[in-house]
Amino acid sequence: MRGYIGMLKFPIITMLTDFGQRDAYVAAMKGTILELAPNAKIVDIAHDITRHNIIQAAFILLNSSRYFPMNTIHLVVVDPGVGTERRRIIVQGNRSCYVGPDNGVLSLAIQEEGLKKIVLISDRKYMRSNVTATFEGRDIFAPAAAHLAQGVPIESFGRKVDRMMQLRISHPNISDHHISGEIIHIDGFGNIITNITDSQIQDLMTIGQQYQVTINQTIKTMMYMKSYGYVSPGELVIIIGSNNYLEISINQGNAQKLFNAMTGDPIAIISQ
Amino acid sequence: MRGYIGMLKFPIITMLTDFGQRDAYVAAMKGTILELAPNAKIVDIAHDITRHNIIQAAFILLNSSRYFPMNTIHLVVVDPGVGTERRRIIVQGNRSCYVGPDNGVLSLAIQEEGLKKIVLISDRKYMRSNVTATFEGRDIFAPAAAHLAQGVPIESFGRKVDRMMQLRISHPNISDHHISGEIIHIDGFGNIITNITDSQIQDLMTIGQQYQVTINQTIKTMMYMKSYGYVSPGELVIIIGSNNYLEISINQGNAQKLFNAMTGDPIAIISQ
Amino acid sequence: MRGYIGMLKFPIITMLTDFGQRDAYVAAMKGTILELAPNAKIVDIAHDITRHNIIQAAFILLNSSRYFPMNTIHLVVVDPGVGTERRRIIVQGNRSCYVGPDNGVLSLAIQEEGLKKIVLISDRKYMRSNVTATFEGRDIFAPAAAHLAQGVPIESFGRKVDRMMQLRISHPNISDHHISGEIIHIDGFGNIITNITDSQIQDLMTIGQQYQVTINQTIKTMMYMKSYGYVSPGELVIIIGSNNYLEISINQGNAQKLFNAMTGDPIAIISQ
Repeated sequence: MRGYIGMLKFPIITMLTDFGQRDAYVAAMKGTILELAPNAKIVDIAHDITRHNIIQAAFILLNSSRYFPMNTIHLVVVDPGVGTERRRIIVQGNRSCYVGPDNGVLSLAIQEEGLKKIVLISDRKYMRSNVTATFEGRDIFAPAAAHLAQGVPIESFGRKVDRMMQLRISHPNISDHHISGEIIHIDGFGNIITNITDSQIQDLMTIGQQYQVTINQTIKTMMYMKSYGYVSPGELVIIIGSNNYLEISINQGNAQKLFNAMTGDPIAIISQ
Repeated sequence: MRGYIGMLKFPIITMLTDFGQRDAYVAAMKGTILELAPNAKIVDIAHDITRHNIIQAAFILLNSSRYFPMNTIHLVVVDPGVGTERRRIIVQGNRSCYVGPDNGVLSLAIQEEGLKKIVLISDRKYMRSNVTATFEGRDIFAPAAAHLAQGVPIESFGRKVDRMMQLRISHPNISDHHISGEIIHIDGFGNIITNITDSQIQDLMTIGQQYQVTINQTIKTMMYMKSYGYVSPGELVIIIGSNNYLEISINQGNAQKLFNAMTGDPIAIISQ
Repeated sequence: MRGYIGMLKFPIITMLTDFGQRDAYVAAMKGTILELAPNAKIVDIAHDITRHNIIQAAFILLNSSRYFPMNTIHLVVVDPGVGTERRRIIVQGNRSCYVGPDNGVLSLAIQEEGLKKIVLISDRKYMRSNVTATFEGRDIFAPAAAHLAQGVPIESFGRKVDRMMQLRISHPNISDHHISGEIIHIDGFGNIITNITDSQIQDLMTIGQQYQVTINQTIKTMMYMKSYGYVSPGELVIIIGSNNYLEISINQGNAQKLFNAMTGDPIAIISQ
């Protein structure tokens, strides 16, 4: 049997959900996995993301799945449509395998690593015997991840399909003196992460120069530096963050609060 | 040696505490376990529950322990009486083993899976050499769980006793057109979970029908549906949740806030 | 090869960061570790500490690292100076090994267990090929911990140095009837933890006696007892906490809120 990762002694299953850590939901999924795949190594990606926020989860998955070993199984349950007719999928990429609802949450990671195949999860043999309508994480997705870890081939779960729902990170508008982008994520430090990438600005912006940044009608002037610590605590700074996106930060402070910024807000950067 | 799980290569120890995740307490317990039982697989159930809330912890344990493999050891430290004369117990059920204070926190899970035996933890040999009065989680309970995982028989920890403190989930009053129940849990999504079960309403309520729900003098009319996603985002809905309790929810919203509901509040449901 | 822990089958790597659990940062580090050291057992100490709070992290590390087995690797990334010229170090103590920035965060734990050697992390061979200026946790520190776990000798990472930045826990002033100390930590329960230790008060304070406690101009009288549960719920109490520091607590309540106390505030205790 050439199962997905039947050859791994300690297969890794990561978990990304919006269930928080004050309920039984995450633990019920972990128990279900360990019952079926006792050797699985379960690693939490995050459970405290904003509830029902598919875009935020997709972005976090993108920026963590790429660091895990080949053949890691990523189990993602951010699923406001649970129990309705939305599809459940297993997606094999060039490096990893993803299990979750077909609502776009898996799409950014797959766009980066490249798609091999998509299979619907439909064979009841690989589900909990009593599937509820409100917790497919426990009843369908966790068992699927565990069976994959045990070496069940992807094709066994259901029929192959060609398409899955796709989210897209928008592209900024860039001219010589003006960059118009969008906020795509705000992290727990209050760093404002934009859709403007390292390579897009490398001929336009210079380390040590000042720029004017506008978000929500708030206009601030700040330096573009290599890291937070090059400005004084409390000062604004533009940096290229660890995933190659341009970020607006305050050294040891919270830029999100200053600008009252939200994901989706436009941002403009002008040379001084 | 006929230890509890002496035969398991990677015994599972779960942890459920009210210690939060911003202190050294949980880690001190994990270090203590790994010092004594290097092969143990430690799985967090939850640490962010409401401080000192024994009932909430008992409910979360009930709804997670049943999904773990046979012979899992559940280490539970929600223990407002730490250091006083309350007893410390190991409880062997038909599927699992529980370690914690005798304050009711273990009782709902044991009521479901069935009791085999209760033993007091009293032999100093299985405790940290210096037992403090304020952190028995680290000094008594974690070592007990680790020694169990290493195969020490339950009887070695102390004498057998017949009784443990019992919490009870109350029963609703049900007539043809009126159901009176109680809120037993509110989850992190704001879903209101009641003591009314699937089987109690199956002859009384019909999917797709409307019902009038009263909580704290707030009266709302809503549909009984199979899952959240069958009503529009922001709409109230009655569902049967993943543990077979009747729940009041708002699709992608927070029902707890709308009703200002708390655990223990009465709820009434009337056919329209 | 006489690597640090090359002989361990399942080396333990703990993680202590201020990254929170709603972003990809912690997971990116875990993936990086498992890519390089598939057998590593990763254990979270805490990620929800106050952002940029080096002293709080140093205190939590002190009070958790001592419970882990010999040769545990503690990976600590509370690093407001990331990307600047502050040094990165591996510190071998008498029991454990520490990896992190040289900003004092490792110092309290090392002061307790005793220092063997300090090495700078400078050899690029043990870093991610593309080191960013904003996430050395992923690019430098996590790879270093993983390579240590794989048996790479400490000396291989860079040159030995003699000194590291040291934080100090201050000493209280103690006379027959008056103890003046400082608040060094406030835990998630709101317990106020002081720099006054068990041994310093054992001839001065008596279990069951009353004392007057002053914090921030708020003066309260309370008993010195063995544990929280010896006073009624809601009552103030002085106890010796689980790490041998004198603490001010409210049984099942929050002492921090009553006194509006902060780390660094002075505290005075007078016999009645």
